[in-house]
Amino acid sequence: MKLNIFKIGGNVVDNSQTLEQFLDSFCRCQERKILVHGGGALAARLAEDLDIPVKLYEGRRITDEATLRITVMVYAGWINKTLTASLASRGCRAMGLSGVDGFCIPAVKRSPHPVDFGYVGDINPAKIHVVFIQRLLEEGLVPVFAPITCDRSGQLLNTNADTIASSLALALKTYYRVSLHYIFDKEGIYGSNDSPEPLPMLSKEQYLKLRSRGVITGGMIPKIETALQALSAGVEDVTVGTTGIRL
Amino acid sequence: MKLNIFKIGGNVVDNSQTLEQFLDSFCRCQERKILVHGGGALAARLAEDLDIPVKLYEGRRITDEATLRITVMVYAGWINKTLTASLASRGCRAMGLSGVDGFCIPAVKRSPHPVDFGYVGDINPAKIHVVFIQRLLEEGLVPVFAPITCDRSGQLLNTNADTIASSLALALKTYYRVSLHYIFDKEGIYGSNDSPEPLPMLSKEQYLKLRSRGVITGGMIPKIETALQALSAGVEDVTVGTTGIRL
Repeated sequence: MKLNIFKIGGNVVDNSQTLEQFLDSFCRCQERKILVHGGGALAARLAEDLDIPVKLYEGRRITDEATLRITVMVYAGWINKTLTASLASRGCRAMGLSGVDGFCIPAVKRSPHPVDFGYVGDINPAKIHVVFIQRLLEEGLVPVFAPITCDRSGQLLNTNADTIASSLALALKTYYRVSLHYIFDKEGIYGSNDSPEPLPMLSKEQYLKLRSRGVITGGMIPKIETALQALSAGVEDVTVGTTGIRL
Repeated sequence: MKLNIFKIGGNVVDNSQTLEQFLDSFCRCQERKILVHGGGALAARLAEDLDIPVKLYEGRRITDEATLRITVMVYAGWINKTLTASLASRGCRAMGLSGVDGFCIPAVKRSPHPVDFGYVGDINPAKIHVVFIQRLLEEGLVPVFAPITCDRSGQLLNTNADTIASSLALALKTYYRVSLHYIFDKEGIYGSNDSPEPLPMLSKEQYLKLRSRGVITGGMIPKIETALQALSAGVEDVTVGTTGIRL
């Protein structure tokens, strides 16, 4: 049985045209499917409007209590319900979830040493409550995951959406042939900074070469590395971009 | 088969001691159960911090676009996930939901005539997706409902939590013997303004008498009337207050 896991980030969530196109094509997929979404500009805008300063450590966000509250409100509240309602209006039996619900993605708060990133959750694919998710899928439901989890004490935690997508893929690959799709507003990955067409496929060797040449940079690096790890751990295939370049 | 539907409002959500006590006793209930929650002071505080004015018509709130966003963020995001995580930490298999998820409580936007209350959803117990909720209950899950719904176009709507609780009771009474519990921070309903003990039971006649004498006032009136309607429509019993006065 085939399962498609789609991850969309802020650049899709924030662009209504890209988002509508994605949701249309997501609904056309007739196989079992899961949507994992990240954040978007709304969380940052809300923090600014509420005068909550953004705390960073080497460019990475620190989630203090006020930031956690905003993250939960925006991700698990506004974005999750907006996406679920949009899918419902297209006849898709979407079910908005987070790792908290049914405690389906147990997390642990990241150690404060060497750097205290605050209320950030780390997850382990082996701990995911696979039967719970499988039952939803077999009922014909379409889980829509916000990147929020909690630990055993009930502490809510902000969790990386790319990691949730790849962890779900790893946890479910025993039961399904899993394809993992990282969707973003670019067509895919380009072989050089001025190539007109994205690559149809990217090998690990090509990735390393493009990274060392500075063509692949920034946020794409952890994304592709998470994807490559998922591939080597047995996820059937992984694509990135709107057209779905195969890794 | 017995099903208990508990509704808690802002006065329980906002008082951490009352809330903890309620969650403990909710978890002790071994029968099938559903929790429906309302809002709390956080939504109003957030609106104030964001300089979003509260619009009222004859004391009733109007939900404009900015207010809707806050409502969804606070109710379906922060409060729903906080409650679900607290229940998970107590070993309860809670599942945070709204009427949007699985489109389980379809709503229609209230007519703007004679008064435009904005993004408010009206619901019909006969339209509730009973099988969906029943499957969750039979899986041993505990649905935790935020009072947010959507219409067929995917428009999110603010919906009265008391109405969601009583509508769920009416929709599920064909399959379960339903008890509906409206929980609030008072022990129950008092026979007069200076009586030391709450009434053990309240009949419709007593209610009408206490209302005309000004003992039962304000927000208690729609609460009790919704409860009495549920009773006359076949819900097995209805209680109000922390100790559970029987109506």
